[in-house]
Amino acid sequence: MKIDGTPYRSVWVDQDGWTVRIIDQTRLPWSLEFRHLTTVEQAAHAIRTMQVRGAPLIGAVAAYGLCLAMRADAGTEAMERDAAMLTQTRPTAVNLRWAVERMLTRLRNTVRGERVRVAYDEAGRIAEEDVAQCQAIGRHGAALIEDLARRARRRVNLLTHCNAGWLATVDWGTALAPVYMAFEQGIDLHVWVDETRPRNQGAALTAWELGRHGVAHTVISDNAGGHLMQRGQVDLAIVGADRVTRTGDVANKIGTYLKALSARDNGVPFWVAFPSSTLDWQVSDGVAEIPIEERAAAEVTTVTGRAMDGSIATVRVAPKDSPAANPAFDVTPARLVSGLITERGRCTASAAGLRSLFPEAG
Amino acid sequence: MKIDGTPYRSVWVDQDGWTVRIIDQTRLPWSLEFRHLTTVEQAAHAIRTMQVRGAPLIGAVAAYGLCLAMRADAGTEAMERDAAMLTQTRPTAVNLRWAVERMLTRLRNTVRGERVRVAYDEAGRIAEEDVAQCQAIGRHGAALIEDLARRARRRVNLLTHCNAGWLATVDWGTALAPVYMAFEQGIDLHVWVDETRPRNQGAALTAWELGRHGVAHTVISDNAGGHLMQRGQVDLAIVGADRVTRTGDVANKIGTYLKALSARDNGVPFWVAFPSSTLDWQVSDGVAEIPIEERAAAEVTTVTGRAMDGSIATVRVAPKDSPAANPAFDVTPARLVSGLITERGRCTASAAGLRSLFPEAG
Repeated sequence: MKIDGTPYRSVWVDQDGWTVRIIDQTRLPWSLEFRHLTTVEQAAHAIRTMQVRGAPLIGAVAAYGLCLAMRADAGTEAMERDAAMLTQTRPTAVNLRWAVERMLTRLRNTVRGERVRVAYDEAGRIAEEDVAQCQAIGRHGAALIEDLARRARRRVNLLTHCNAGWLATVDWGTALAPVYMAFEQGIDLHVWVDETRPRNQGAALTAWELGRHGVAHTVISDNAGGHLMQRGQVDLAIVGADRVTRTGDVANKIGTYLKALSARDNGVPFWVAFPSSTLDWQVSDGVAEIPIEERAAAEVTTVTGRAMDGSIATVRVAPKDSPAANPAFDVTPARLVSGLITERGRCTASAAGLRSLFPEAG
Repeated sequence: MKIDGTPYRSVWVDQDGWTVRIIDQTRLPWSLEFRHLTTVEQAAHAIRTMQVRGAPLIGAVAAYGLCLAMRADAGTEAMERDAAMLTQTRPTAVNLRWAVERMLTRLRNTVRGERVRVAYDEAGRIAEEDVAQCQAIGRHGAALIEDLARRARRRVNLLTHCNAGWLATVDWGTALAPVYMAFEQGIDLHVWVDETRPRNQGAALTAWELGRHGVAHTVISDNAGGHLMQRGQVDLAIVGADRVTRTGDVANKIGTYLKALSARDNGVPFWVAFPSSTLDWQVSDGVAEIPIEERAAAEVTTVTGRAMDGSIATVRVAPKDSPAANPAFDVTPARLVSGLITERGRCTASAAGLRSLFPEAG
């Protein structure tokens, strides 16, 4: 997508043909800073410190990290060691493991002298496939927005939670791909952006990427969405997903469930957009079976932002001795989800719906 | 309630018999600072700048403000002017107008030489009546918590939103009065405290007052409550109210509605505690009829807290050019409310329930 008119991706290979470039997302929205990655250690550091985040982007950066590793030492021993090191940077990220395994499968079957070239080829494929997948999600989801716009004959108001935009993928995003696609088609739309405490990915990342691309949006506290739906100010809610069960239950950023409840209470369609790699065919009951990561209390008790003097500062909002709990995700039961959007198309949030799109998954 | 073992109220008359003392709530939870009010202008300033907030407390401070006014000039002209000035400090606060009118009614019927004495007498009555009312709410609500504790035979987990504690009243609070009362009775309880963006009254005030009184509590992001209810970690949700309709609809801090929805979805009792002055007998349909105050966008795009160097700093969390919307309240329909707690007792959230407690309003 664009940053003030110039097209960007969230990871790319520099004009020199080998240096990997990323946007340092820990600096957003306060400043746009690019990082050059020239070693596998730098790639691992970028993933570990969340300079890059979002499952698809982490996978792509890890793949490029192995390219950099091959340039330094294309021997099998070093390759296996660097791959294991990359996998450890975010232990729960499924895409990360998947991308590293895919790279290894190809590299193990490649003679040492060819490994650098083959690695860049495979990492490039991973990135391009991610873009194509997000574009497909965008097309299938944009049809919903077009339909709303046609019936409403006025500006369409969408609501999203967290960041499932192009910054979380290589380009386009998942939940935001339909938004960008509809915007590119000239549909008059506006996005309510949930702040998404405690890490503020909505206020920091979603607002930034929508604004820089030119999409009308308004930041709201996470508390406000129900009220806006009650007042008829939301036509469609659309979010991403971290894991979707075979029955259509959706694990996503904490707070998603509350928005799904208010969407249901007010007759607002609630859609979930994700690539099929997010599907977990082993799990049936999301609420009972999906373990929820508990993150650091400091994410709740403090907030980071730009101080008046221009510096990036962290302030404590809670009393020093008050404990905090920080469940990072929640599970929205399929019964509250209007439908799912994948690269294969749309379906109901149900075992039957998912089977119709993915018959091979049995 | 207590601050580290010492009993306090949120407003009181100093040992000198006339200076009014308050806790500067804009400094909480970072530092406990008391202010001496010696002029009506200082009292007005304290209300305007939200050093004191919460409808009952604002009313009491305004009453004491008129006491200070009488000391400076007990003439009728000055009295009416100062009363009007106090009423203007927070134009939408119903209790503020009510307290000032009550003071004026008594003072207008008092000879000038007696007005200082009479003013302190009446302000004292207003404060004591508020305390008695909150205690009554506490007794009626504590019975619910006792009942839960008896059945659960383990620690009882409560959830509250915003601050409806002793800091918002003269003492005890509304939603928190039952919590303090049950705690004083030795019931083992724990409170989940919603941060309550955008102004963070939960993280800043509720967590502080519970912690200083010794009540076990945990701060959570506003997004987390639904997940905790899903996992059976909330036995009872209890909140205050800014306005309650004759049919039991509840206007309260933005985000209350989302918690009521998740309480309903998970079979968690959702109670609302408030003094009868909060009842608006003129309104039937809260969602359609109650106007919702839209506050400054900067409350959403920035957060204030204590920086690492100890200073109080404000940081921006959203992009500079992203607009924000800030509806301050929402309306929870009566159908989602398990029951209401007033100083007269408990009732269902319905016209019939309220009429049974307040037959004279009928």
